[in-house]
Amino acid sequence: MELDILNLLLVLGVAWIAGTVVQRLGYPSVLGELGAGIVLGPPLLGWLSVGDPLMVIADLGVLLMMVYIGMEIDLRDLGRASTGGLLAAIGGFFVPFGLGYAVTIAFGGDVIAALFIGMAVGVTSLATKSRILVDLGLLDTRIAHVMMAGALISDTLSLIVFAGILSVVTIGTLTVFGMGTIALQIALFFFAAWLLGTHVVPHVFAWVSRRGFDGRTFNLTLTLLVALLFAELAELAGLHGILGAFLAGLFLREGIRVRRLSHDISGVVKDVSLGFLAPVFFVTAGFEVSFDVFRDDLAFLFTVMVVAIVGKIVGTALFYLPSGHGWREGITVGFGMNGRGAVEIIIAGVGLQAGIIDQSIFSILVFMAIFTTASVPVTLKWGVDWLRRNDQLVRADPSTKPALIVGAGALGREIAHHLAPYRPVRLIDLSPDKVALALEKGLTAHQGDALDADALARAGVEDCGTVVAITPNPAVNVLVAQRARSVFLVANVRAMMRPDSDAGLFDVLRSLGAAPLFGVPIDYARWEEVAALAERSELVEMPAAAARARLAEEGLGSLSGLLPLFVRRSGVLRLFAAAEEIADTDEVLFLADPEVYRA
Amino acid sequence: MELDILNLLLVLGVAWIAGTVVQRLGYPSVLGELGAGIVLGPPLLGWLSVGDPLMVIADLGVLLMMVYIGMEIDLRDLGRASTGGLLAAIGGFFVPFGLGYAVTIAFGGDVIAALFIGMAVGVTSLATKSRILVDLGLLDTRIAHVMMAGALISDTLSLIVFAGILSVVTIGTLTVFGMGTIALQIALFFFAAWLLGTHVVPHVFAWVSRRGFDGRTFNLTLTLLVALLFAELAELAGLHGILGAFLAGLFLREGIRVRRLSHDISGVVKDVSLGFLAPVFFVTAGFEVSFDVFRDDLAFLFTVMVVAIVGKIVGTALFYLPSGHGWREGITVGFGMNGRGAVEIIIAGVGLQAGIIDQSIFSILVFMAIFTTASVPVTLKWGVDWLRRNDQLVRADPSTKPALIVGAGALGREIAHHLAPYRPVRLIDLSPDKVALALEKGLTAHQGDALDADALARAGVEDCGTVVAITPNPAVNVLVAQRARSVFLVANVRAMMRPDSDAGLFDVLRSLGAAPLFGVPIDYARWEEVAALAERSELVEMPAAAARARLAEEGLGSLSGLLPLFVRRSGVLRLFAAAEEIADTDEVLFLADPEVYRA
Repeated sequence: MELDILNLLLVLGVAWIAGTVVQRLGYPSVLGELGAGIVLGPPLLGWLSVGDPLMVIADLGVLLMMVYIGMEIDLRDLGRASTGGLLAAIGGFFVPFGLGYAVTIAFGGDVIAALFIGMAVGVTSLATKSRILVDLGLLDTRIAHVMMAGALISDTLSLIVFAGILSVVTIGTLTVFGMGTIALQIALFFFAAWLLGTHVVPHVFAWVSRRGFDGRTFNLTLTLLVALLFAELAELAGLHGILGAFLAGLFLREGIRVRRLSHDISGVVKDVSLGFLAPVFFVTAGFEVSFDVFRDDLAFLFTVMVVAIVGKIVGTALFYLPSGHGWREGITVGFGMNGRGAVEIIIAGVGLQAGIIDQSIFSILVFMAIFTTASVPVTLKWGVDWLRRNDQLVRADPSTKPALIVGAGALGREIAHHLAPYRPVRLIDLSPDKVALALEKGLTAHQGDALDADALARAGVEDCGTVVAITPNPAVNVLVAQRARSVFLVANVRAMMRPDSDAGLFDVLRSLGAAPLFGVPIDYARWEEVAALAERSELVEMPAAAARARLAEEGLGSLSGLLPLFVRRSGVLRLFAAAEEIADTDEVLFLADPEVYRA
Repeated sequence: MELDILNLLLVLGVAWIAGTVVQRLGYPSVLGELGAGIVLGPPLLGWLSVGDPLMVIADLGVLLMMVYIGMEIDLRDLGRASTGGLLAAIGGFFVPFGLGYAVTIAFGGDVIAALFIGMAVGVTSLATKSRILVDLGLLDTRIAHVMMAGALISDTLSLIVFAGILSVVTIGTLTVFGMGTIALQIALFFFAAWLLGTHVVPHVFAWVSRRGFDGRTFNLTLTLLVALLFAELAELAGLHGILGAFLAGLFLREGIRVRRLSHDISGVVKDVSLGFLAPVFFVTAGFEVSFDVFRDDLAFLFTVMVVAIVGKIVGTALFYLPSGHGWREGITVGFGMNGRGAVEIIIAGVGLQAGIIDQSIFSILVFMAIFTTASVPVTLKWGVDWLRRNDQLVRADPSTKPALIVGAGALGREIAHHLAPYRPVRLIDLSPDKVALALEKGLTAHQGDALDADALARAGVEDCGTVVAITPNPAVNVLVAQRARSVFLVANVRAMMRPDSDAGLFDVLRSLGAAPLFGVPIDYARWEEVAALAERSELVEMPAAAARARLAEEGLGSLSGLLPLFVRRSGVLRLFAAAEEIADTDEVLFLADPEVYRA
């Protein structure tokens, strides 16, 4: 069998164009790829056709995409989820799951189909989330955290239920003995995967790395071999390879101990799956859709759609009530979790291929996924505006993630001292003297070289939500920022800059998505001296209006004798970022130079 | 058709293990992959079997590998090849080509088979070269340059001849009219590829980049689409897709104007082809080998082997004679170019698939490729030792590539001034004053920010063999070194460091494969002052022994009042690197601090 280049060119080409257009409109590109398959493929125009080679590529694409999704999940995020978030996730999965199961039975479907549809309406797609959250400026809100944890939990639940259904289908019986065998098989598989993933995989990667095989190509092959091994184990257990690939991804994220390598490889897997193989799968998934359901199964289609939407939103909101954050927030979270996106399409595609569902149920699930995913940006925006109008859009508690301060000079210690009551703060410095000073004052400090990624890791940078680079040398700060952003993917990175710093350093910082500390370059030597004199003294506090006026009139630092360090918002201290970001209810805390500043 | 996960796991697994073992032994990994296919596949043990899905993956692998090979070739290197090198390459292709053709006809083969065998014995594999050159420490020798250019030229010639043979086979005639049609078709294809590659592809990439689509995943998809389009065009012209993919790679290298993106994408294409898809091809290529040739065609196998080896070595050496570098050097170059490696296997595989050659010729070509490729490390080492014994191993002329000096202070200008007679030297600095000073003294200087990759590109960093970062700030120098190494792949990068520089900066520099300027940290401010006073004065010259003694006794810089700037070797000035690297016939040139140094 030969590869049909023209067919691949056309399929990849339309996937690329449709995906890009749809993404520009604010939707996940998978919708465009599916749509292109439906419109240009057999269901409507029939310009594109599937061939065996495309199926192979699509299969590979699904496997690699599951590896990528697994590698993107940080299991520690799950541990950090609040009880309210956990409940919302469970409600958001089981309520639509139960409703989906019930309506399928009511419409005369069998148990397997009912379980499958239940599972599909219960899914919340993780991969589609982050873009919308960025666009709506929600990344640091409480609802965003709840939604991310919810998507993660409901995806995991779906995959477990999916595993169960697949086993049932493989065994073909529902007796007590059969169910027991199934449970045992699944348990054995998960145990084997856990054993391999935590006790073998990390050692293999560590061993090859010690022997000098630290190249990306070499370790990519090893990664793929691990993924294929897990996929094969899943198949042996009567499950589907995508389950194994997903678990492999989960374990590989932690198993590849060299952070840069783990990050690089997940990048390559992402590029190859999202940029090459998976789009082929989504286009060919569109090929299988049949418009006949609008004629033959319209009532069922409509019912599944309603159950999916209402079940997800109401289920989420109801189970979220005990958190005490109100029903408005619960409904908004439900809006956000209503999208089904890529994972549901993958599961439905596998179900169709395995003969668990027929083409009409597949089509219903695809239309449901398209409709719900497309509605998220609109409904979530309503919800967020609604919360804003009622002043209930709560920013996430910044104390959930620690801050790392690189450079334990007087200014660094001052920042650490004031921030410490609100979140865990760690300092790192090359100088043992400075570290000793910091320890003396009750701060957490490590001696180490922050330009060495391993020293950063030892200081716990991986958990940190914020990194502040405040060594005397702006170029070193930029190098630290680069590591923090690109190796450790820290969200919030600030680097101290001086007015005479090379213009290129500012460009580098900008290109990293990091920002100058305090928003502007500062006269470091002077403020270091002020901080050393003022150490442990009170900061000058001003309400928003006064602080804005002061900053507008006199500029930052030198002129006014005031350096804005923090903003106090909702009782919590955060680093000052820029004058434009001061809200009316904020208070700004300044470090004051006593020689210039008069209260 | 479903993907057989177990089969893929096994094939990729054995490819990975065999490839790694063979590579550790000093041979290209393709030999291990082929060998694993022969031993574990149908030819011997029969444990592995080919399936349709594997064929699709293998086809994709070959396409992507040709894209990668194309992207690795810098056409400007061809323009820089010496006349001697060009002649050697032509002789190294056409002599074995003619001999291969003749013996095939003599053994009763038809014209097509004869042309095909001729082409296969003419190939020199590019992808296998660099590792051996590094291992034997040959990278900066003249023979290395000749071999690299030779491999490039003979690969290109083979692909053109291959295109011709494919057209002949497609048309199925050898009449004058038929030949004319073929020539026209090939010419049309190459013209279309050139037009698209130079006039359309760069604009498309520039356009999407202007519209903000600068992500790696997005541009990888675009790259693959271009490659598939070129492959399809080649197929339309009656040629094979691999020709199109190869040309696409050639043009994409230049077409993706954003250097970082071009480098990133070629990296991903490399990982996916060499780390995933191509190994599957090489293992399955091994499946097709038949040991029957040892019984049925032993005489022919032996003759082809002899013709390939003798033809390549003698052809190269003969045509290299006019260069005046002697027959020893010519024969050594021939040893080095004797390997066939990956490209020949790919061409033979395509020939077998297209029905141009049968399984026995395919097997002969595979055995020939394995034998010749495996012999290179051994024979090349003989040749090099032989040249060394006769003191004929000539280092390449370092003046062929320009040097870029970042930082136009007094020291930077001093280095530029002394180096300028031996190689093109460019300066870049952010300060217009320093640039003006440099221009005044007749140096080439650009005003620009060296931390901005585009400014570096405008200063011509891409052609440079050496980058010297000598701004006052060591951290900036390290950032520049990082860009020069990882974005522009400059071979020789030096950054000025100070004794009080952060220890992490030295680590970063080492991890980049760059070195401190002058080999050690220096007191920059002091030497900048000395250079400003001494500007354009004579340097202090010492023979090797005296310089070594001086350096050993008094250390560098401060103590002795001497800063070693250059080494004069074979009449050419090069930057001083380390005391251990001074050869007995060298002279060392020092900058002297008149207040401390007494002659």
